[in-house]
Amino acid sequence: MQNIRKYVHDNKQRFLDELFDLLRFPSVSADPKYKAEMLKTAEFVADKLKIAGADLVEICPTAGYPIVYGEKILDASLPTVLVYGHYDVQPPDPLELWKTPPFEPTIRDEKIYARGSCDDKGQFYMHVKAFELMMKTNTLPCNIKFMIEGEEEVGSSNLAIFVSDNKEKLKADVVLISDTSMISLEHPSLETGLRGLSYVEVEVTGPDRDLHSGVYGGAVANPATILAKLIASLHDENNHITIPGFYDDVLELSASEREMLNKAPYNENEYKIDLKVDELWGEKGYTTLERTGTRPTLEVNGIWGGYIGEGAKTVLPSKAFAKISMRLVPNQQSDKITKLFKDHFESIAPKSVKVKVTPHHGGEPVVTPTDSIAYKAAQKAIFESFGKEPIPTRGGGSIPIVALFEKELGIKTVLMGFGLDSDNLHSPNEKFDIANFYKGIETIPLFHKYFAELSK
Amino acid sequence: MQNIRKYVHDNKQRFLDELFDLLRFPSVSADPKYKAEMLKTAEFVADKLKIAGADLVEICPTAGYPIVYGEKILDASLPTVLVYGHYDVQPPDPLELWKTPPFEPTIRDEKIYARGSCDDKGQFYMHVKAFELMMKTNTLPCNIKFMIEGEEEVGSSNLAIFVSDNKEKLKADVVLISDTSMISLEHPSLETGLRGLSYVEVEVTGPDRDLHSGVYGGAVANPATILAKLIASLHDENNHITIPGFYDDVLELSASEREMLNKAPYNENEYKIDLKVDELWGEKGYTTLERTGTRPTLEVNGIWGGYIGEGAKTVLPSKAFAKISMRLVPNQQSDKITKLFKDHFESIAPKSVKVKVTPHHGGEPVVTPTDSIAYKAAQKAIFESFGKEPIPTRGGGSIPIVALFEKELGIKTVLMGFGLDSDNLHSPNEKFDIANFYKGIETIPLFHKYFAELSK
Repeated sequence: MQNIRKYVHDNKQRFLDELFDLLRFPSVSADPKYKAEMLKTAEFVADKLKIAGADLVEICPTAGYPIVYGEKILDASLPTVLVYGHYDVQPPDPLELWKTPPFEPTIRDEKIYARGSCDDKGQFYMHVKAFELMMKTNTLPCNIKFMIEGEEEVGSSNLAIFVSDNKEKLKADVVLISDTSMISLEHPSLETGLRGLSYVEVEVTGPDRDLHSGVYGGAVANPATILAKLIASLHDENNHITIPGFYDDVLELSASEREMLNKAPYNENEYKIDLKVDELWGEKGYTTLERTGTRPTLEVNGIWGGYIGEGAKTVLPSKAFAKISMRLVPNQQSDKITKLFKDHFESIAPKSVKVKVTPHHGGEPVVTPTDSIAYKAAQKAIFESFGKEPIPTRGGGSIPIVALFEKELGIKTVLMGFGLDSDNLHSPNEKFDIANFYKGIETIPLFHKYFAELSK
Repeated sequence: MQNIRKYVHDNKQRFLDELFDLLRFPSVSADPKYKAEMLKTAEFVADKLKIAGADLVEICPTAGYPIVYGEKILDASLPTVLVYGHYDVQPPDPLELWKTPPFEPTIRDEKIYARGSCDDKGQFYMHVKAFELMMKTNTLPCNIKFMIEGEEEVGSSNLAIFVSDNKEKLKADVVLISDTSMISLEHPSLETGLRGLSYVEVEVTGPDRDLHSGVYGGAVANPATILAKLIASLHDENNHITIPGFYDDVLELSASEREMLNKAPYNENEYKIDLKVDELWGEKGYTTLERTGTRPTLEVNGIWGGYIGEGAKTVLPSKAFAKISMRLVPNQQSDKITKLFKDHFESIAPKSVKVKVTPHHGGEPVVTPTDSIAYKAAQKAIFESFGKEPIPTRGGGSIPIVALFEKELGIKTVLMGFGLDSDNLHSPNEKFDIANFYKGIETIPLFHKYFAELSK
């Protein structure tokens, strides 16, 4: 632990400078206009892996953005850890709400503000630096493989193909991912589950052209009004989702599981104050921690139609659209839910409009075991670096790839996240606390150490 | 009539060329970036009035866009006709749906395609050319005043001030407006009423920033979902508007009035085919002609919130917005309805969000008398030029200024429109039939002739 702390201390500034260089790439996978920057980002990551000491580094092409692969094989007999991360980031808009530009990393009260600072550049880069540390201090206790993709924010569809095509290359004993959050540095935690995702886009078409709302108002269905009615009908008065069969596969938690889960530190008042809302909202009968961690949800991610410019236009629009995503919990299946949504949404549309539902992407929910060698290694690592036992939590986010690893490679994942829920992931002013960045670099080598020891 | 037809025939091409010049100005009053073009348009109109033979022409400044005033006073003892029109147009978007650019007038099968071709440049310009005709052929039988404004599409608020400040200058016996439609050249009609308008913008705010829909989904109210629920609640299952008191002041038509109104030629099947909808929509218990002409309506003109770009973003938006307008019928009051909407909308918003309602603009509904000298003059003029009695109809659109004239100047209006409902007003590919343009120029001098005669 001393050597680790010393190495981190001696290289503090350089680690930060390198992360800043990485954060300056606007690697937005959702928007084709950033293609060139995406490729530069992949090259940057590959270079850093080489410099850190990987024997083999490849930029693997896919039908979409390339996957950066790197490895250091000490001895085939040693256990192997596969580190996963992603170099792509969410779109930065609405830009006007950023205090400082999203791709010009800025430090304010010990926090790094930049798109991707926490999700996931800042977090996967901790692994690159921890790897460098272990190489330079000759303390790497196991084989290590890196797979850093560029399409996590758009569904990882090409990664899925890559994984099933490269099972031998990716052979490992555990997957280690830092792309989630912990409660706080005072309350370190480990996520033991993730929600799945089903993301669709809906289009409602009324008349074949925009119409004068005076001449035609009252005579033809307004697609914006109909879309509102359709969306409104997706939650009942208790905020249960009304799609038939939606909850069929949901496994209810046991009383003890719920009790355990609700032990996590949570202050509803602080939560409301942080978000500046007077009242929370959600499915009746469940606590906030349960609603975000263990219950499926349906959210409108975007809605648009008609005239949205300056001033007033008295138009009856021809079309209205919405992007809608559902978070899924263990035992629900993304494809099945997408179909249930499509069938239901099309079935409730009135004859006065035409409705089209286009699936975007999805991912399966996962639960990670808490009795595995890998989980125990993570517990010991965190205990040593934080001086506290990690609290097991359920994450509300989705990392589709986790379920895929289990299916394709037959290995479990450890979700050792060092971000915070308050890091504004996917929002303006995304940040990552510098302390968490360094803490991660310190903790990761300990995970490798204990994983190797416990695997003996 | 012979002289009229001859003059129009001899000047056909020039009339069209001049209209095209007028249509080339992108005079969009809703969007500040067109300010310079707006002023050029006003100058163009003023010049044409001078050339046509007005004694006095002024470009009258207002707090917004100027009003073009022109007059020809033959003799104080003669009756005076005040011609109203507007040189501003609706925004052209969505641009991608225009077959030819909105401000490059193009003729396709005898129709002029351009923003403003019918609403209202093409229509008020008929009066400028009819005035020229009467001057050049020495047949102007009465005094004539022109008032062409530049803010009709954004609520005419400055015109209202101008009118009450210039009652003496605008003194007249009747207002003549061509800013509405007729059924067809085979079925000439005269509008005997117009709907009023109340236009508002609503803003729903949930959390103070966009959030990760996985981390927070299910815990806080999604403003897009809540906005959908609020909008959905504004119409009941019979598509009646649910705002308390909304219908209180609506005057029900008598059985005979309804019978008369429904005599107008209307083919529901053709109507549906034209709009490419399988089924119409509207308030239960009323025919399409009644719903668009004599019943108040509520339409969503625009809705937006969250991520509306390419691809997928799993965001729980901080805000969602909608532009909503209500068409009002005789005896309803714009301010009162706006307040009813605001109070209701704010009252039904759940505590989990904050709601803001901002009034845009409004206008009062009107009914024009069918027993006045002016209406009779219009009937005779149309009968002479079309060879058919005009059918009285109720227009669904709104021209707020009409009610204002009655209130401020104490004079009634004749709505002698030569457009068609199918002219795509406020839509892409707005058009005006060349035949209607010439027909208007022929009919207008006859109106002046009969109005002067009947006034004796």
